[in-house]
Amino acid sequence: MEEIMEKMYLMTPGPTPIPPQVALEMAEPIIHHRSPQFQKIFAEVLEKLRYLFQTKNDILLFASSGTGAMEAAVANLLSPSDRVIVVRGGKFGQRWAEICVTYGIEIIPIDVQWGMAVEPQEIEKILQSGNSQPIKAVFTTLCETSTGTLTDIQKIGEVVKKSKAVLVVDAISGLAADDLRTDNWSVDVVVGGSQKGLMLPPGLSFVSISEKAWDIMEEKIPSYYFNFKKYKKVLSKPDTPWTPAISLISGLQKSLRLIKEEGLENVFIRHQKLAAAVRDGIEAIGLKLFSKNPSNAVSAVRAPANINSSKLVSMMRDEFKVWIADGQGELKGKVFRIAHLGYMQRFDVIIALSALEMTLAKMGYKLELGKAVAAAEEILRGNYA
Amino acid sequence: MEEIMEKMYLMTPGPTPIPPQVALEMAEPIIHHRSPQFQKIFAEVLEKLRYLFQTKNDILLFASSGTGAMEAAVANLLSPSDRVIVVRGGKFGQRWAEICVTYGIEIIPIDVQWGMAVEPQEIEKILQSGNSQPIKAVFTTLCETSTGTLTDIQKIGEVVKKSKAVLVVDAISGLAADDLRTDNWSVDVVVGGSQKGLMLPPGLSFVSISEKAWDIMEEKIPSYYFNFKKYKKVLSKPDTPWTPAISLISGLQKSLRLIKEEGLENVFIRHQKLAAAVRDGIEAIGLKLFSKNPSNAVSAVRAPANINSSKLVSMMRDEFKVWIADGQGELKGKVFRIAHLGYMQRFDVIIALSALEMTLAKMGYKLELGKAVAAAEEILRGNYA
Repeated sequence: MEEIMEKMYLMTPGPTPIPPQVALEMAEPIIHHRSPQFQKIFAEVLEKLRYLFQTKNDILLFASSGTGAMEAAVANLLSPSDRVIVVRGGKFGQRWAEICVTYGIEIIPIDVQWGMAVEPQEIEKILQSGNSQPIKAVFTTLCETSTGTLTDIQKIGEVVKKSKAVLVVDAISGLAADDLRTDNWSVDVVVGGSQKGLMLPPGLSFVSISEKAWDIMEEKIPSYYFNFKKYKKVLSKPDTPWTPAISLISGLQKSLRLIKEEGLENVFIRHQKLAAAVRDGIEAIGLKLFSKNPSNAVSAVRAPANINSSKLVSMMRDEFKVWIADGQGELKGKVFRIAHLGYMQRFDVIIALSALEMTLAKMGYKLELGKAVAAAEEILRGNYA
Repeated sequence: MEEIMEKMYLMTPGPTPIPPQVALEMAEPIIHHRSPQFQKIFAEVLEKLRYLFQTKNDILLFASSGTGAMEAAVANLLSPSDRVIVVRGGKFGQRWAEICVTYGIEIIPIDVQWGMAVEPQEIEKILQSGNSQPIKAVFTTLCETSTGTLTDIQKIGEVVKKSKAVLVVDAISGLAADDLRTDNWSVDVVVGGSQKGLMLPPGLSFVSISEKAWDIMEEKIPSYYFNFKKYKKVLSKPDTPWTPAISLISGLQKSLRLIKEEGLENVFIRHQKLAAAVRDGIEAIGLKLFSKNPSNAVSAVRAPANINSSKLVSMMRDEFKVWIADGQGELKGKVFRIAHLGYMQRFDVIIALSALEMTLAKMGYKLELGKAVAAAEEILRGNYA
């Protein structure tokens, strides 16, 4: 870091701020991964991850970004020429499709207007259409980070479980912000990442795998580092097939303890309240939310006419040291995204809205200063839960 | 970490100890990776990595363990049914072979007795044998971590550069301990990892790629997360295709500065002196080095008759808190390995030898206490350089 007297506020949908106690944990002397000491940490991490994922399924950890784990899910579950449904309602739905195409998987895309959530009936219709070749998997996202849209995983789970297909959910940005009942909702594969609701640096990814998912794996696509079955052989020790990201896993132990102590239910309520405060705030100054079915993790907001969101984002960062995110893909310059994800409390939201008010005023947008903050305070002055 | 008043000494060939200033750097608040601030860090890291790798080639960084980068090298460089030479003189040579076989590559193995280094002429003989189908790549290791053996990369480079094959070197444990002149020795692909000579936690890997290597890539094996050509498109910004392991890269900036300040030449001399001190030490108490051509990174030592090295390693860890490594594969129980790698100075070696003396004495091995330490001091009392 450069030596500048500066407070920086990170409100992007990944990376998210690291709690100081987690940062310090990761700065402890490193230990060897083939040892009783690490096994103890790893066992606790696996147990608490199952609590977070709301599952009894196996959970594998990889040293990789979330995209690596998404690719791993495709390569392990499928064989070339398999047919799958891919919900494309944003950049990360598109990523599922790109990965499948890379591996010669035949995709049946459901193209959803960005900002809208997929209708579970559309998935059901395709699953029931009685094609000669059955659908092997359905790929979707919990929170589509590019649009801030929540998918109704529960309803999709009800639909998919009646078929032979497995349901694969990219929960990278939604995990720990939006409820995801892996077992109750019959989600076969959940992919997660460290740098979002888990309050860690990027570099660690997670995959939970149901019995139904284990059963369809044919290992026709070669894989080594990300090979699930190879991993499964050592998981019960518990161990990892390759050197794990030891310091991130030590940090994970701490952040999972924080989540457990707060209680998952309360974690969701906190995210929901912070999201509501941001939304009431932006509406109070005449702005509109982009998503029709918003996630608790991130709010995508339409930039006002004549205001370029890319400029807004860089001005907020450079002048006020508040980091939010621009739109992605077709939304670049048109939408900005404020994350309220992970290690976030009420005053993080206040800071983001205050910086937004001042930046918009500087850019010539007409608004009454303090109105967004006031609207947020109406929600935040109560208890979280 | 548990709250125990305990000093722990990590002398394993990965992970290796983290310098406190690097650990603290990684505990600084995290910044966003798509920002001028991160670009500046990343540009410095790329420049200093080229200094460390002694190359002008492109260097790609991945959030993964070293094995992920090894697989990436195979999958990006080769096509199914390509023929390659693989030097197998230990567990990591075997890993190259396993990865190649996973992808349907036809391997011509050169099986070297564990502890011996490959004869470069053996590679030359195969390259010149005039087979109908040419050899596309030669896979070997700089330091074969399982046996502590150094490969003569310079001579192999001379042999391979005359052919159309590319030379791919697993330098994960050897990098920054053993000299490796990537450009001068015509090494096309070098794979590195963070948790060895680079003094970082595991979770970051590196691949340097020569023009010759870029030219042979046909992209016949599907890859997404580890796709080199996709990465190359954003490298010049400099950027990464996926969310990078931000905190590890911040730490890397610091550890590369430490290496630059010491000077690569001096880093090698320090490792060489520490290695010599360990070797004189173990010989002074009647033990024998396993390797015939030892690396500066790690010393594999034959356990004395009637002493099981697995028991020795766990006793050293449990009673003296000094962590060394047991033998791997066929050497388990027969050989123990002391690493003198990364953030290591003279007294780390003294501690390891002192713990070894006391452990051996406890296990009933006849020795004069202090003799190993004395032999090491003869070397360590001088300057490093």
